[in-house]
Amino acid sequence: MSMNSFGHLFRVTTWGESHGPALGATVDGCPPGVPVDAAMLQHWLDRRKPGQNKYTTQRREADEVEILSGVFEGQTTGTPVQLMIRNTDQRSKDYSEIMDKFRPGHADITYWQKYGIRDYRGGGRSSARETAARVAAGGLAREAIKTLAPDVQIKGYMTRMGALEMDRARFDWDQIDENPFWTPDATAAQEWADYLDDLRKSGNSVGAVIEVVARGVPAGLGAPVYGKIDTDLAAAMMSINAVKGVEIGEGMSAAMLTGDNNADEIVMGANGPEFTSNHAGGVLGGITTGQDLVVRFAVKPTSSILTSRKTITKSGEAAEIITKGRHDPCVGIRAVPVGEAMMACVILDHLLLHRGQVGENRGKIG
Amino acid sequence: MSMNSFGHLFRVTTWGESHGPALGATVDGCPPGVPVDAAMLQHWLDRRKPGQNKYTTQRREADEVEILSGVFEGQTTGTPVQLMIRNTDQRSKDYSEIMDKFRPGHADITYWQKYGIRDYRGGGRSSARETAARVAAGGLAREAIKTLAPDVQIKGYMTRMGALEMDRARFDWDQIDENPFWTPDATAAQEWADYLDDLRKSGNSVGAVIEVVARGVPAGLGAPVYGKIDTDLAAAMMSINAVKGVEIGEGMSAAMLTGDNNADEIVMGANGPEFTSNHAGGVLGGITTGQDLVVRFAVKPTSSILTSRKTITKSGEAAEIITKGRHDPCVGIRAVPVGEAMMACVILDHLLLHRGQVGENRGKIG
Amino acid sequence: MSMNSFGHLFRVTTWGESHGPALGATVDGCPPGVPVDAAMLQHWLDRRKPGQNKYTTQRREADEVEILSGVFEGQTTGTPVQLMIRNTDQRSKDYSEIMDKFRPGHADITYWQKYGIRDYRGGGRSSARETAARVAAGGLAREAIKTLAPDVQIKGYMTRMGALEMDRARFDWDQIDENPFWTPDATAAQEWADYLDDLRKSGNSVGAVIEVVARGVPAGLGAPVYGKIDTDLAAAMMSINAVKGVEIGEGMSAAMLTGDNNADEIVMGANGPEFTSNHAGGVLGGITTGQDLVVRFAVKPTSSILTSRKTITKSGEAAEIITKGRHDPCVGIRAVPVGEAMMACVILDHLLLHRGQVGENRGKIG
Amino acid sequence: MSMNSFGHLFRVTTWGESHGPALGATVDGCPPGVPVDAAMLQHWLDRRKPGQNKYTTQRREADEVEILSGVFEGQTTGTPVQLMIRNTDQRSKDYSEIMDKFRPGHADITYWQKYGIRDYRGGGRSSARETAARVAAGGLAREAIKTLAPDVQIKGYMTRMGALEMDRARFDWDQIDENPFWTPDATAAQEWADYLDDLRKSGNSVGAVIEVVARGVPAGLGAPVYGKIDTDLAAAMMSINAVKGVEIGEGMSAAMLTGDNNADEIVMGANGPEFTSNHAGGVLGGITTGQDLVVRFAVKPTSSILTSRKTITKSGEAAEIITKGRHDPCVGIRAVPVGEAMMACVILDHLLLHRGQVGENRGKIG
Repeated sequence: MSMNSFGHLFRVTTWGESHGPALGATVDGCPPGVPVDAAMLQHWLDRRKPGQNKYTTQRREADEVEILSGVFEGQTTGTPVQLMIRNTDQRSKDYSEIMDKFRPGHADITYWQKYGIRDYRGGGRSSARETAARVAAGGLAREAIKTLAPDVQIKGYMTRMGALEMDRARFDWDQIDENPFWTPDATAAQEWADYLDDLRKSGNSVGAVIEVVARGVPAGLGAPVYGKIDTDLAAAMMSINAVKGVEIGEGMSAAMLTGDNNADEIVMGANGPEFTSNHAGGVLGGITTGQDLVVRFAVKPTSSILTSRKTITKSGEAAEIITKGRHDPCVGIRAVPVGEAMMACVILDHLLLHRGQVGENRGKIG
Repeated sequence: MSMNSFGHLFRVTTWGESHGPALGATVDGCPPGVPVDAAMLQHWLDRRKPGQNKYTTQRREADEVEILSGVFEGQTTGTPVQLMIRNTDQRSKDYSEIMDKFRPGHADITYWQKYGIRDYRGGGRSSARETAARVAAGGLAREAIKTLAPDVQIKGYMTRMGALEMDRARFDWDQIDENPFWTPDATAAQEWADYLDDLRKSGNSVGAVIEVVARGVPAGLGAPVYGKIDTDLAAAMMSINAVKGVEIGEGMSAAMLTGDNNADEIVMGANGPEFTSNHAGGVLGGITTGQDLVVRFAVKPTSSILTSRKTITKSGEAAEIITKGRHDPCVGIRAVPVGEAMMACVILDHLLLHRGQVGENRGKIG
Repeated sequence: MSMNSFGHLFRVTTWGESHGPALGATVDGCPPGVPVDAAMLQHWLDRRKPGQNKYTTQRREADEVEILSGVFEGQTTGTPVQLMIRNTDQRSKDYSEIMDKFRPGHADITYWQKYGIRDYRGGGRSSARETAARVAAGGLAREAIKTLAPDVQIKGYMTRMGALEMDRARFDWDQIDENPFWTPDATAAQEWADYLDDLRKSGNSVGAVIEVVARGVPAGLGAPVYGKIDTDLAAAMMSINAVKGVEIGEGMSAAMLTGDNNADEIVMGANGPEFTSNHAGGVLGGITTGQDLVVRFAVKPTSSILTSRKTITKSGEAAEIITKGRHDPCVGIRAVPVGEAMMACVILDHLLLHRGQVGENRGKIG
Repeated sequence: MSMNSFGHLFRVTTWGESHGPALGATVDGCPPGVPVDAAMLQHWLDRRKPGQNKYTTQRREADEVEILSGVFEGQTTGTPVQLMIRNTDQRSKDYSEIMDKFRPGHADITYWQKYGIRDYRGGGRSSARETAARVAAGGLAREAIKTLAPDVQIKGYMTRMGALEMDRARFDWDQIDENPFWTPDATAAQEWADYLDDLRKSGNSVGAVIEVVARGVPAGLGAPVYGKIDTDLAAAMMSINAVKGVEIGEGMSAAMLTGDNNADEIVMGANGPEFTSNHAGGVLGGITTGQDLVVRFAVKPTSSILTSRKTITKSGEAAEIITKGRHDPCVGIRAVPVGEAMMACVILDHLLLHRGQVGENRGKIG
């Protein structure tokens, strides 16, 4: 029982703090024979890397991943894969402002209350830098999925920034990689750019909604009743820094529907059952239907802002705090590749679980 | 790694199907010396029991819990507690209608695709009857919490039924137990009663939102980064039948806030840190702040409705289906005690985990 | 993390005490589609059942197993299988002798020191009755193995009783089921009968060595480095009541060999690699070789004897104790079916694990 | 469920191969506030380090441990501790001899049969180099134990080399660190030195028995019935390379005792219960008694010897093999610090588990 691990058969343990020498992921249970090298993983890390445009933190981290074990002659061996990322930008600075004061909306107060000790240089273990390790592990999961279920495609994108929501009528897959917000709505991207620019200059921050979709997932994945694939997705996404809500398919809006509107009708297609709608988000009873698997999560605005806020010190005295530094005005942007990584890990895990517990003899229809 | 278990040190494994001889919960890790008897658990089961008013299924189950192990002379011994509930209402009926057809929105198609075998008499393992076992285990968790953190109070209630939302200005704790919907808004209760009555008569169903609050939870509970208390709550709630979304504090709305609005300011109170607001829902960085712990979840409308829907048979032929039977027009009602039970289990688990991994030497403030 | 569970994908949680209403096993992860009914499991329970001859306890337990879940129309469904055994012989008796005194060599003192509460009626959770649940689960594992690896055969037998060891030159498979000690040496069986008869009459007890062999296990099972199949077997056997030592292949005697004597030479046989000897006991590096899988364990003599022994009371006063009752003079006898059951569970678990993590694409030789 | 992890609350995951860039241990669950630095861990690694005398492999590894996370300003923070050891002696050599041939008694054949891929440069993941990571983690466990149970002392030593056994009458704690075999019998050390010197020159190898004792362990540790402390110790020791048998207290010899000889009598001492003997090895019913905790394990002779042995190639052809290289004539020597490390990890784990599940309110005696 490791509290820094997730997954069942594909088991990822992340380690490391924002200002220590390194961080990484110990990945156990990756199947043998998966072709992989550091460059394949680096591709995904580069998407999450800070400092790529003016909308993300200007902290400069190379985020170069090294594979220290588990890969031999370009293939996984079935033994643990250690993925290490050195911290390079640990600039010497004055921590006196945050060393004794707690930041409203930040985990520093709870880490202190829990452990009685904390790494005050940045967020320590609670820093979003931890998600770099997830992205590296997710890259490995993607390569393994290719060998097991080659039709699977995973894509994340932003659907809301603060009060501004994308328009689903303008949804265009090809737009996703064309703007700094990974949104499929080009018009929204332009609006958000202007909005975020103003916000950044004022030292404020804003929340976002991210949607991650997996296409081509086989029907039958998910292990009821506490290893349901939507249960695992909810946990995976909620464990990401700053996430406050997770939805599957209709999500919270399912509460507003009546039964006749919600039930996705079933018809027989050329390759098996098809559904006339996807309110379910690709999951029934915790098991995949073969439809698009759709998960959505909300990221709160970062607590590191230039507006002065009331707080207290470790000795309990009233204080004011402004968090200077190089922070993301909308951390949701960099949460997109993280959400994709978690989706990849969960899908791979359930591909392996299904193979282990059930094998291939599934119920045929038609 | 059991797929029918949840929790770390307080570990609950549920078992049983809707139409088998019995169902139950095997509870491992309950601390020794907790005073408990069957009647204490029955109290909570009676709240979930079907057939208590016209808004819940008319299936008649006694839902009587028996304690088969782990309790001696009125106290837990530290060994596994087996909680068994006999199924009594297994009325002989004609299953030919649903035996070969899949119900839109129901797990029968995915169970078939996964396992190639399914218990067609009702929902089998995917039936909401499984939640009776959760409520029994939650009752035991409540008793154990009393011995470890006696200030903890857990309360669930409905905040939305379909398009109708309660008004938080009318929030009244004392109303919660006074209406069949467990809503703190007496006016809403009346509106919902009329609405649901109409819906029930038309054979339709509707979704709901449930909120569960825990007061008096000590600061410092939660095990970052994949055993965060909000991560565990998200998984716990998403694993309940028909749940499609989970929120902590602001939830999905956190995406709409800016940083200066979202960060709960901190002041020093008589008994330690206090916060001027609770956007966080009592959790920062996955660890409790000592504020109210607030989780919300959406329950979709049940798929068992009298409206005819298109579907297919196991042999792949097109068909129409109407699900007759004794179903809940709003399953969200009976999800209230289930949500409370999951909250109790998660809190107890994290009380034990914190004691094990950290002990009592927490960081003092002031 | 349940402390009353073992196994990874095939996960067995046992529950119950010797004098409660019932005990049993909650079995999660049994593959779907395994033909099974209560009678198949009863067959194995009857082998372990007490009171069958004068060499085992005269306690009369029917040990009838009921299947409460997870089986539908004669096949497993993939959901948890609950196996319950009612305690029938809870004869009212005077516990005053053992209620306050600790029995030398018995777990009553450590349970008390750990939990501060204990079920003094018999051994409670530490009673060997717990192993009935293992045997039931092992019976289910055997049926599942038949569908996955039909060549596997599992057989346990006694090789030593006290100072008396069987002679391997007289090893005869067909003798195993022909004597009350399940020993393959008919001559030893006769000697042991006389010896144990005397011992029983004098109210003493004696230890034993049990060997369990699995034939036909495919090469490649085992998950290095902490889920090695021999690691899991060592844990499985050591968890049985009264076991003090576990050996694989040569076991402790491996320490006495030199490298040239120990290394089993490899030759190519008709169906793949063969070995000219089996010092390894069928395991290299924690993975099966395809040879006979051989595990051996020592069972200490039961502590319940008629000889008076020095002890103390709960209040710390010196005392003498004699344990009257209906105890086994050689508990090792009834440990034979238990060891077989554990072997079956471990093999099934690793068949599933291998299928999950590696699949079928194994390294071919030749 | 990681197959490269052990422990419950103190959870160690090792990673790395003998000829990759590095290996290490990801340690999750170490309590916060434990004073530790790399030098403290290095102390224990230096005991295991190869090439220190002529009786161990001449491979030259610095075995320098780096702490990459989880320690801040000289104390653990409660977050994962990453312990990395670079492989430095990866000398370029000709692997053609072992690349296609399997070594009798070695894991190369089973790794190949399981995974269909293997790192043929040395043992890969099956190499005893993996145990360096265990020793590093064990060093951390020792420091944590000091803060929780300062009276605990852990000591390992060799009791047998091949046919030569130490004489318990000459047992002298102070001798243990005075000879290359860590044996408490100075006379045996001299005999073994001569014997091993001859064996080494002839290119042969020999097995050994190691005993590890923990003194000062509090009564009450151990989590029945599948997390018994002896069950966990059996698994921990059996998972060490080349181990074929594990014993607790009397071990296999318990089979030869009668009940009146085996039961350790109890008397009341100045500080609580005492026992007049320790056949139990400090464990009753899987829970510590407060006596010395005694575990013993047998290490087989290494398979890497200069005697020619029959084997086959990957293509199934008959061959002969001699394993040249820099191997340990008695790997048991370097298994001593490894056994100690495993003992430390298990004890710390159960100290945490007991605190979590039971707390401090234990049953008092007297």
